[in-house]
Amino acid sequence: MIVDIINKKRLGKHLTKEELEFAFNSYLKKKVKDYQMSALLMAICLNGMSDREIFDLTEIFIKSGDVLDFSDIPGIKVDKHSTGGVGDKTTIVIAPIVASLGVPVVKMSGRGLGHTGGTIDKLESIPGFRTNLTDEQVKEEVEKIGMVVTGQTANLTPLDKLIYALRDVTGTVESVPLVATSIMSKKIASGADKILIDIKLGKGALIKTKTWAKKLSKLMIKIGKFHNKEVRTLITNMDNPLGDSIGNSIEIEEAMDILNGKKGALTDLCIELASEMVSMGKEISYEEAEKQVIETIKNKNAYNKFLEFVAYQKGDIKGLKKSNKTIEIKSQKSGIIEKIDALEIGKLSVKLGAGRENKEDEINPTVGIKLNKLVGDKVKENEVLCTLYVEKSENYDYICKYFEIN
Amino acid sequence: MIVDIINKKRLGKHLTKEELEFAFNSYLKKKVKDYQMSALLMAICLNGMSDREIFDLTEIFIKSGDVLDFSDIPGIKVDKHSTGGVGDKTTIVIAPIVASLGVPVVKMSGRGLGHTGGTIDKLESIPGFRTNLTDEQVKEEVEKIGMVVTGQTANLTPLDKLIYALRDVTGTVESVPLVATSIMSKKIASGADKILIDIKLGKGALIKTKTWAKKLSKLMIKIGKFHNKEVRTLITNMDNPLGDSIGNSIEIEEAMDILNGKKGALTDLCIELASEMVSMGKEISYEEAEKQVIETIKNKNAYNKFLEFVAYQKGDIKGLKKSNKTIEIKSQKSGIIEKIDALEIGKLSVKLGAGRENKEDEINPTVGIKLNKLVGDKVKENEVLCTLYVEKSENYDYICKYFEIN
Repeated sequence: MIVDIINKKRLGKHLTKEELEFAFNSYLKKKVKDYQMSALLMAICLNGMSDREIFDLTEIFIKSGDVLDFSDIPGIKVDKHSTGGVGDKTTIVIAPIVASLGVPVVKMSGRGLGHTGGTIDKLESIPGFRTNLTDEQVKEEVEKIGMVVTGQTANLTPLDKLIYALRDVTGTVESVPLVATSIMSKKIASGADKILIDIKLGKGALIKTKTWAKKLSKLMIKIGKFHNKEVRTLITNMDNPLGDSIGNSIEIEEAMDILNGKKGALTDLCIELASEMVSMGKEISYEEAEKQVIETIKNKNAYNKFLEFVAYQKGDIKGLKKSNKTIEIKSQKSGIIEKIDALEIGKLSVKLGAGRENKEDEINPTVGIKLNKLVGDKVKENEVLCTLYVEKSENYDYICKYFEIN
Repeated sequence: MIVDIINKKRLGKHLTKEELEFAFNSYLKKKVKDYQMSALLMAICLNGMSDREIFDLTEIFIKSGDVLDFSDIPGIKVDKHSTGGVGDKTTIVIAPIVASLGVPVVKMSGRGLGHTGGTIDKLESIPGFRTNLTDEQVKEEVEKIGMVVTGQTANLTPLDKLIYALRDVTGTVESVPLVATSIMSKKIASGADKILIDIKLGKGALIKTKTWAKKLSKLMIKIGKFHNKEVRTLITNMDNPLGDSIGNSIEIEEAMDILNGKKGALTDLCIELASEMVSMGKEISYEEAEKQVIETIKNKNAYNKFLEFVAYQKGDIKGLKKSNKTIEIKSQKSGIIEKIDALEIGKLSVKLGAGRENKEDEINPTVGIKLNKLVGDKVKENEVLCTLYVEKSENYDYICKYFEIN
């Protein structure tokens, strides 16, 4: 039976809802084997899926686990998702901005794996910060201060987790239908009313071409419509790392600087994302939302919301620590920086201890990379390109080649 | 590394010899997992392989196990392979014909699985018949009587066995490059000088379309050329069962009838295949070979060679038994038989006990199906369509529907 289903997809035909349910639900029950599912996934990668198949598969993913319900919290709950990047601390900046403007934020975030970090790891670099809240605590916090960021406690889309792990080791990650299904099922199961997707495009991202990004965007909007959820997407550049810090505590510092009104490399993207969320949550124009966002940063409401949020989750912001062992990497030539290799910088941060290669690895919150020069900056020979916060000293001069200087 | 290779094939690029070696040899060593290999196989099914990749993969399969060498037996050794059919007893007919004309035959045959039977099972229905000969015994027999048919003792293409088993359960059987590689590696490893391939085409066969069969034919000839082995192919019909018997002892009976000069449903195909083999082995024209084949049947040399061969392998041909419990299936209408469903007849023979669903199943050599009417025959209501040789009586009237009568 499963072989017939795989054969059907291999021949480029559409699978019925019953066939998709049989294949994927049997996989969850371990009755369909890994080697059968990976063959089916490869056939899907190469032969695609119809919209109907995609809607069906999204529903199968959602129904495989818990579905959260925040309908008793007043206001439109807007969730934001990023397809993953190096140095992405936007959630930590945006959530307080949006919440300070009265739009409730309930954000379930993840940990980092591979070359990209995770919001939960970053927040945990604040001593005492709690990320394992119960459902009760989540609701209480949103009611009291209008926002919460916590790790996933509920069993959301367990089927997606299994499938994702299998895709990761079988060369079946790059598929528009599979990526869209994975993201959308998770977001819908986590109870958002509206969803904003930040599609990262470029060298350091999963999505490498504009065509791909556009297809993905269209498809996610369609899936949202099918489930009666407004979805907006942004396609944003990820050739270079996001902002000027990659690590954990140093990314919290950068986030606080932006909230404090310091114009940083990531300010514009954060304002754009926050404005979209406010526009969706308050059902006002983007322009009006943007005005409010700029104002709430200026008058420190956003920054104060951040402090309130950290304190509420028992974090001691004054205890935030960076490693006091630093290494400065100096440029070997003069010129203008044209590119900074986000992928290599991400991998380097893992190597320094800021991320994990395997799920069970422990991370060091105090290490990371501060970029002293960004793309477009002039640099002279022997000027500092970046500063490494490290655990132990080593020769890191090879890092120079991650900066393309011409 | 393996993920990079799978991704490369998914993107439709050609794999280098080193990449193919890494992927397949690591699979043999269990370092590449089933779920990774099945994803790669599906990518190969859908994106194909270049000739160079196919030659490389064939070589990897050959080198994964023993390679037999019969070069010290004088004469050109011609091997015949059939892509599998229902009621296929051609090897048992052809081998004595060819051997009786002085062309040495060394045939390693297999057992049946699924709806197709195996030559070794059929021969073992002769009481005492030995099929587990040592290499020494094989050589001795060819020298003494010019032919031998035995089971595989050597460890030929173990990688192909593993891959075949995986393809069977992952919907990756239907691939011209993978089928060609599998057949050709086995034949080359078994030491033949020249190879004749009988490509079965039709409902009861693996290969369902003529385009497919032609592609496969071309490709196998190319692989042969690359290995300096002459390959000839025949594309023969397999919509209906081969001949008029499906089982084990009853197929031996049919083979003996053909060798005895009785004109049967399978006579023409056997003469064609034998003539090709003699033409290849003696390097004479097909027409000349055909004359010799017809003569060796007529003068009983072929039949006597069969008896000599059975006796040499300790078989007691007089002890051949059919079940004495028979059921006659009568036609429910009058007309001309247009089709007999080979696939269903094959499955039915398994159900009767003539074949095995799982490798470890035991078979009953005395059961089977004798077709009293063949395609093209007229039949009247209540006339016998076929006779079942069974272990226990049951109602088998539904079998009527496997015969299309109009």
